[in-house]
Amino acid sequence: MQLGMVGLGRMGANIVRRLMRSGHQCVVFDRNPEPGKALAAEGAIAAADLAGLVAGLQAPRHVWLMLPAGAITEAAIQELAGLLAPGDVIIDGGNAFWKDDIRRAGELRDKDIAYLDVGTSGGVWGLERGYCLMIGGPKDVVERMDPIFAALAPGLGDIPRTPGREGRDDRVEQGYLHAGPNGAGHFVKMIHNGIEYGMMQAIAEGFDILRHADSDQLPPEHRMTLDVAEIAEVWRRGSVITSWLLDLTATALAADETLSGYSGYVEDSGEGRWTVQAAVEEAVPAEVLTAALYTRFRSRQDHTFAEKVLSAMRKGFGGHVEPKKGPAA
Amino acid sequence: MQLGMVGLGRMGANIVRRLMRSGHQCVVFDRNPEPGKALAAEGAIAAADLAGLVAGLQAPRHVWLMLPAGAITEAAIQELAGLLAPGDVIIDGGNAFWKDDIRRAGELRDKDIAYLDVGTSGGVWGLERGYCLMIGGPKDVVERMDPIFAALAPGLGDIPRTPGREGRDDRVEQGYLHAGPNGAGHFVKMIHNGIEYGMMQAIAEGFDILRHADSDQLPPEHRMTLDVAEIAEVWRRGSVITSWLLDLTATALAADETLSGYSGYVEDSGEGRWTVQAAVEEAVPAEVLTAALYTRFRSRQDHTFAEKVLSAMRKGFGGHVEPKKGPAA
Amino acid sequence: MQLGMVGLGRMGANIVRRLMRSGHQCVVFDRNPEPGKALAAEGAIAAADLAGLVAGLQAPRHVWLMLPAGAITEAAIQELAGLLAPGDVIIDGGNAFWKDDIRRAGELRDKDIAYLDVGTSGGVWGLERGYCLMIGGPKDVVERMDPIFAALAPGLGDIPRTPGREGRDDRVEQGYLHAGPNGAGHFVKMIHNGIEYGMMQAIAEGFDILRHADSDQLPPEHRMTLDVAEIAEVWRRGSVITSWLLDLTATALAADETLSGYSGYVEDSGEGRWTVQAAVEEAVPAEVLTAALYTRFRSRQDHTFAEKVLSAMRKGFGGHVEPKKGPAA
Amino acid sequence: MQLGMVGLGRMGANIVRRLMRSGHQCVVFDRNPEPGKALAAEGAIAAADLAGLVAGLQAPRHVWLMLPAGAITEAAIQELAGLLAPGDVIIDGGNAFWKDDIRRAGELRDKDIAYLDVGTSGGVWGLERGYCLMIGGPKDVVERMDPIFAALAPGLGDIPRTPGREGRDDRVEQGYLHAGPNGAGHFVKMIHNGIEYGMMQAIAEGFDILRHADSDQLPPEHRMTLDVAEIAEVWRRGSVITSWLLDLTATALAADETLSGYSGYVEDSGEGRWTVQAAVEEAVPAEVLTAALYTRFRSRQDHTFAEKVLSAMRKGFGGHVEPKKGPAA
Repeated sequence: MQLGMVGLGRMGANIVRRLMRSGHQCVVFDRNPEPGKALAAEGAIAAADLAGLVAGLQAPRHVWLMLPAGAITEAAIQELAGLLAPGDVIIDGGNAFWKDDIRRAGELRDKDIAYLDVGTSGGVWGLERGYCLMIGGPKDVVERMDPIFAALAPGLGDIPRTPGREGRDDRVEQGYLHAGPNGAGHFVKMIHNGIEYGMMQAIAEGFDILRHADSDQLPPEHRMTLDVAEIAEVWRRGSVITSWLLDLTATALAADETLSGYSGYVEDSGEGRWTVQAAVEEAVPAEVLTAALYTRFRSRQDHTFAEKVLSAMRKGFGGHVEPKKGPAA
Repeated sequence: MQLGMVGLGRMGANIVRRLMRSGHQCVVFDRNPEPGKALAAEGAIAAADLAGLVAGLQAPRHVWLMLPAGAITEAAIQELAGLLAPGDVIIDGGNAFWKDDIRRAGELRDKDIAYLDVGTSGGVWGLERGYCLMIGGPKDVVERMDPIFAALAPGLGDIPRTPGREGRDDRVEQGYLHAGPNGAGHFVKMIHNGIEYGMMQAIAEGFDILRHADSDQLPPEHRMTLDVAEIAEVWRRGSVITSWLLDLTATALAADETLSGYSGYVEDSGEGRWTVQAAVEEAVPAEVLTAALYTRFRSRQDHTFAEKVLSAMRKGFGGHVEPKKGPAA
Repeated sequence: MQLGMVGLGRMGANIVRRLMRSGHQCVVFDRNPEPGKALAAEGAIAAADLAGLVAGLQAPRHVWLMLPAGAITEAAIQELAGLLAPGDVIIDGGNAFWKDDIRRAGELRDKDIAYLDVGTSGGVWGLERGYCLMIGGPKDVVERMDPIFAALAPGLGDIPRTPGREGRDDRVEQGYLHAGPNGAGHFVKMIHNGIEYGMMQAIAEGFDILRHADSDQLPPEHRMTLDVAEIAEVWRRGSVITSWLLDLTATALAADETLSGYSGYVEDSGEGRWTVQAAVEEAVPAEVLTAALYTRFRSRQDHTFAEKVLSAMRKGFGGHVEPKKGPAA
Repeated sequence: MQLGMVGLGRMGANIVRRLMRSGHQCVVFDRNPEPGKALAAEGAIAAADLAGLVAGLQAPRHVWLMLPAGAITEAAIQELAGLLAPGDVIIDGGNAFWKDDIRRAGELRDKDIAYLDVGTSGGVWGLERGYCLMIGGPKDVVERMDPIFAALAPGLGDIPRTPGREGRDDRVEQGYLHAGPNGAGHFVKMIHNGIEYGMMQAIAEGFDILRHADSDQLPPEHRMTLDVAEIAEVWRRGSVITSWLLDLTATALAADETLSGYSGYVEDSGEGRWTVQAAVEEAVPAEVLTAALYTRFRSRQDHTFAEKVLSAMRKGFGGHVEPKKGPAA
């Protein structure tokens, strides 16, 4: 099958590579010509611009965008919508906001262009492990593109099958899911990332407590020095919390159990924020997913204004004068 | 009435002053002789040591400790227990852990020495406003010391009376409460401080959001610059959140609405931690009181180890490399 | 001065009454004719519809809406915009979403109609205590309406003045604030309510821990029975947490310290949710304000789906079978 | 090697079975004679009481306790301490509080009896998968018992090895770790369970938001019905949150995606509470681990007293009367 790919960053380029390994033909484009050249050397057709990419595809065309969410994706879709013909398909594989998908799909539908929102998980490992795909959009289009999704997904692998799934959709066990109408793909991916934040924070807090088991806040007879790298490793086998995130933690701690190469400044992407917004809109309590997000907000500041307000009140009622600077972490 | 006061820091000295204003006689002691001299000039009798303090009081003696909680208070009680006679009373007005009160009261009871635990709120303002007192211990001793408590408490003042209190204990409206048996005084004070942490954090977070209403995280058409000092002031009249803590916030912001004199490093005292422990022991969910405590823990670190673990995982699955340093708060 | 009032629920009707006490003339309208009749008997002019209300006012007209936020307010503004003339003013005193204010103000500006968003705090007590007003909109309109705002605000009262406010806007001490451009009024009111949620939750959790001080989760020697009504009362004098919310708690507990008349089902209004959204948009951590909101979400469910997922996992890894029903609260 | 096992519940009996599969000899005892008989039929020696168990072992004896934490374990250790001889070893494989381990180890050391605390993870799956073991105690005893630990641990299995572990302790990759001195084993197990709570809650909240994607709190154009069983399944392959807990969730949802067989009442064991206490003692912020615990506390009540306090305040300031009963979850 043929696919156009717009945006050849790490994710986009590796998706192209994984598709070509399965015999699919890819026409590719990126504003930066370098990654297109590299992929052309591996068998892709590199276009010079979006018009060229569209011209290089046979109708009905399938154009997958792997671009930063927001204005850049929006602009590319606008331009593509002017180039494509009725019956063509735009796939947004980036991290779009699900309400934008619903809006966009409606706008494109007016032009008889179909739209799929495909939440794509897999990161830098996807080329080898495959990508977990969460797809929103019209059933017929999803089915027509099945060869693409099947090629990208991880497949059954050696993961034990879930008992009791007899009679259910086989594609899901391969690692791709038609989650529902437009918006559903990115909604499910958003929640995936929300859970990811929460699981990461749970692991992170646990290791923080382990590392401070020798804290002088504890009475001397209760202090102990623990080897966090060994602890991460032992939990990988037979424990309840075995997980890929724990595997990654074990790898990082094996390299340097102080993690001194990391500043502790942690970015967040839109999905964590949108997850909290969805919880609030649905009136679902989501303490853990929210706390995980707020921890990242806090990590990027020296001090919050809130903390200064606390100090000011403490001085006001108790005359407390806080130290100018705390001890190192 | 006569009272011995051990510990003449700001709280202890001002309690003595407020008692003397009501005609009570105070025998005072502190390891540092200066505050005792100052109080002697105002009418107190300064003792040179605990033995002298005990010798200066008529039986039954009432000795109030206003010392740092923990080892220092514990040592003073041990020494006093050897000096006092059956029928005498030790009052701990500091911030003891309520389980220590229960233990201590039992130990002293074996020597026929009574013990009161008196949670004392009022801070630097107590001398003028009076002290809110939460008292744990035997009823007869609490009643015998009523003149002391009545003198320390704020009294009715101009605070409107709570409707529906007819027939209830009049002392409570004066600002002092016999809360229950030993431990109850400090238990109630502990929860007071727990609530204090939570209310402070609520106010602090609100002002943090106000102050960042001009954040570049918002689209330009939604940004606005708000005057947090004026906002604190306007809420002091007719709003639902009128409170002393808001008054103090307004005062601090009127002086400097950037609070640039505060580092943002915030101490916590034992009560906040004990409140969380009590919640956990009772299996009562206490999200807000706990979050308020954790914010203070976080404020005293440059970065947590947990944050570094997050970054390490992010690098592991997504190749994300976090900045070395964040923007200023 | 003349004011039109649309929406004569408790808030709207009492605002009219407070204005008439100061000699202002009010033309009023509500779909339900009863409250208009009642106010007419007190001196207001009751209109039969919006057109009648507009006809009853002299230009430039000032029409205050006190309607449920959302579609009802939106519809009334649309209708009014067609009836009013350039130079007239619409004031939304309800609980609108601040981004809607910004949008609406722009739409009305195109018709030369001014718009004010006025966050109004005071609840059922406003008629007597006055209303705390947080105003967003153009400076000249705010100044022209000063007599209205001054009449509604609580005034200085017997609240001590904040030291260090010399040279600042005197109106703020009266209890009304021109917070900024359109949207600022409701933004500030939103944060007020967010803080209100957090302070309420802090108080509520504290009393929950107090009430369970006799829990059988504690060892027998640590259990105590505490009188929560008396504790609320004693904290009203001289403690750090004195506040109107504590006063209200004391009143409720004096009437029935078990609060058995309350189910524990707690509504939330939009402001709490919008506060969390603003925090997330600004990337400001707001643990306490968010936890307070989530507690309310949780209070309205028998059980969450999340809890069932937990039980299912526990059965999966440990064979744990949870009880069908828990003990009473 | 020989091992005595006291406590033949599911965990204890399966540990015995797994040891016998590797050729170890087990002398077993339980107050209930049935499981001992069953194990005797499989090759164990069933003792009639602790004295009989001790008599059945050759010095130096190794007696493993797999009993409920607290008084029962404490009593068994007291009795055993009187029966064993210098050089013998007691192993507590249950879920003891780590500070109790430190105390007990000291008491037993006075009698020349060694003590190991062994956190044991594996649940009902341990017999087949093996047990993840976290061991605290003296190095020589841990090394002497290596054949036992090696037989119980899962072994390398087909789990990929962590890169960069060259030169580290090989035993850890087999799934057992000498974590440190007495207390360290249960400390590490405690944190494992704390993380487990947090990860479970993250997954649970995510599925709660997914399930309410059709909520009438959302505008109609944004509602969608999602198949949570299929979503759990697709995330098992190639996603970032692949984990055993997700596998278990997928199994439960495949059986019944409404989870209607679960009430939503969720127990907690001591480890979650102790984790929070450790965080508080160390002054480490642990928002997520704590929120996960509080959710369980909340799940076991119809309504909290805190919620009633909220309603009482809302009635006080706003006249709000809450519904008597909420809608079903």
